[in-house]
Amino acid sequence: MDKGMLSMNIKINKLVQSMKRYDLDAVIATSPESVHYLSGYSSLGQPLGVFIAALLSKEGDITIVVPKTHIDLLCQEKVPDVNVRCYGEFYANFLDEEKLSPAERAFKNFLTQDQTKLSAIEVLSRVLKDGRLESARVGMEEEKLSATLFKRLKDSLPELRILEASEIFKRARMVKTEEEITLLGKAVQITEKGVQNALEIAREGVTEAELASVFEETLIEEHAKPLGTWMGFGAHSAFPNVVPSASVRLRKGDIIRFDVGCVYEGYCSDIARIKVFGKPSSEQKRIYEVILQGEQRTLEAVRAKAKACDLFSLAVGYIRKAGLRDYVRHHVGHGIGSQVYEPPTISPSDETPLERNMVINFETPYYLVGLGGFQVEDTVRVTDEGYEYLSKMERDLE
Amino acid sequence: MDKGMLSMNIKINKLVQSMKRYDLDAVIATSPESVHYLSGYSSLGQPLGVFIAALLSKEGDITIVVPKTHIDLLCQEKVPDVNVRCYGEFYANFLDEEKLSPAERAFKNFLTQDQTKLSAIEVLSRVLKDGRLESARVGMEEEKLSATLFKRLKDSLPELRILEASEIFKRARMVKTEEEITLLGKAVQITEKGVQNALEIAREGVTEAELASVFEETLIEEHAKPLGTWMGFGAHSAFPNVVPSASVRLRKGDIIRFDVGCVYEGYCSDIARIKVFGKPSSEQKRIYEVILQGEQRTLEAVRAKAKACDLFSLAVGYIRKAGLRDYVRHHVGHGIGSQVYEPPTISPSDETPLERNMVINFETPYYLVGLGGFQVEDTVRVTDEGYEYLSKMERDLE
Repeated sequence: MDKGMLSMNIKINKLVQSMKRYDLDAVIATSPESVHYLSGYSSLGQPLGVFIAALLSKEGDITIVVPKTHIDLLCQEKVPDVNVRCYGEFYANFLDEEKLSPAERAFKNFLTQDQTKLSAIEVLSRVLKDGRLESARVGMEEEKLSATLFKRLKDSLPELRILEASEIFKRARMVKTEEEITLLGKAVQITEKGVQNALEIAREGVTEAELASVFEETLIEEHAKPLGTWMGFGAHSAFPNVVPSASVRLRKGDIIRFDVGCVYEGYCSDIARIKVFGKPSSEQKRIYEVILQGEQRTLEAVRAKAKACDLFSLAVGYIRKAGLRDYVRHHVGHGIGSQVYEPPTISPSDETPLERNMVINFETPYYLVGLGGFQVEDTVRVTDEGYEYLSKMERDLE
Repeated sequence: MDKGMLSMNIKINKLVQSMKRYDLDAVIATSPESVHYLSGYSSLGQPLGVFIAALLSKEGDITIVVPKTHIDLLCQEKVPDVNVRCYGEFYANFLDEEKLSPAERAFKNFLTQDQTKLSAIEVLSRVLKDGRLESARVGMEEEKLSATLFKRLKDSLPELRILEASEIFKRARMVKTEEEITLLGKAVQITEKGVQNALEIAREGVTEAELASVFEETLIEEHAKPLGTWMGFGAHSAFPNVVPSASVRLRKGDIIRFDVGCVYEGYCSDIARIKVFGKPSSEQKRIYEVILQGEQRTLEAVRAKAKACDLFSLAVGYIRKAGLRDYVRHHVGHGIGSQVYEPPTISPSDETPLERNMVINFETPYYLVGLGGFQVEDTVRVTDEGYEYLSKMERDLE
């Protein structure tokens, strides 16, 4: 069994277990992330707002519902071993069969399998009927489904019992497979390379926008997509989602703050570093030391079974005691995977015990508006005894 | 009155007219595009899947509902003249008031205006109650609202009469203001520059991925974001959504097909060109000439009052008669604006008469799988007497 198939079996088993627990006959993923998780159908090329779904039966069979307009995306990659049902309308012309490659033949088969031009919900309804699921108990990612389509599905199959199952998918996705951890690590590496390349052009008078361009160009060279480039200098860096400006120029003594990420092969990164251009002031050093130590001490307590809320208390408690008495946060970290924010959240209300192979971001930002943003954010993999860094870039202020 | 305000007044008037026609007391935008259209609140920095809304009352008052976690995005730009209500939880620290800039003070005010940590739907319900709209007839972009949030809103305000109003927003957005046309033109120019830069590195053996990187890097240098980079060589170019590959290399006689776009200041571009590397074959020339003439003859019929469906018939009719007898399409163009696909669609079922200052893409692609993709796609502004190109790059095959 190859690594991809092993990874897929682990995922399916987890979801089938959840289905048993909640007495569900099937679950339907409707977010690009969960569809990709279940089927390998890549949401990378997927334009926004287009309906896709993946249905997993309790027997472990997977059927994806995708638009004909994007079905060629499926043929250009290794075709996943799932049932495919297309909806909508799209046309192409074909040379004689013997002149076509396997991918081209697959494309032809998908386009011509059904000429009825059915809508997305009509096709999903048929898939449910074909599986004798029209009056079944079905868990669905309602959170990621539009209200309009949800109504149409209810109208089309009034006997269907739909339960909100976003949490089932999120929980299944919390613990990562080796394959996923490799991709998450690669996404972090690319991001760190981008930050390093951007810092290389740091000089007096350079603009935020110029540094941001170098950062994003690095991602593109590495076949990743920019996900959020919050990057700023000096006082501007204190805006949490700082949008790089073409009019803010770097001056001696400025903080340069990066809170940045990318998507690589469907997996996200999100790391933060600050550097001072020139010599850090004693105030900058003092604050940074407190928040860095806050992150580091929290990481020292990370291991399987540690509770998210306890790690939160530890971080905020340390930072307040160490000198930032007004420190308030709603979280000091979050799971990361095919989405930037995944459970668990390292927050006062999340009692999730960490598990081996969760991948979690830890961060202890302190936005001092008027002065600057102080932040360090790292990505780690949880192990039985502790953690391993996926983010490796040094944490020096200078 | 400045250009931005004039543009905003035109938009509000159009929506208020629609509200009268459908007897609505208010409309609520929930898509990033319509929220931006109504309020100027930029969705550019907006991470996906985060709830935002803009409510327009029939008196013309606008209130936006945005998360505290992203409220700083509003402060970093020119703050739009709308009511702002935040939801959720976020913290920052502030230097003394007199040391803060106006933007920083605005940020402080937003963060501290309300400490109740209410959810998005709780805040939206309050906004409706404050406007005495809790049992009103309200049009809502249900299509862009998650089923989960829709249910919560219904539970929170059971008397509220919600009508699907996605179409109202789409129709209002069809005719563009001068300000919008300028931004759409700029998005096209940046895209054309990207295509030209990419073509400059075309040489035997270069990979699709290399050309795609040059294209996307150009967009980033120009402060635009890649929106879809469908670019391929030879037979691979016949996949409609061709994902640039690091293993497909350019050979003499290959078609290079670009179907690409970007987002610039919230406005989209989407253009297509093909070039042959080396000398085009007579077959390539013949097919390209037919589809290019198909596009050009259709454009000759473009003017205010021309019907979308008639333009479709004209294009497909011409192409079949001119030699591609098996030509089948579901559309030969679409409106473009803050989304790539906006109404009208130049399709058999869309009877919309064009109007002055609609911005429309025309395209007549012919995907001959096994051989290559033939396509030209242009963006034009509709005028009373005809059209003006926003896309200006030459349409030669060589």
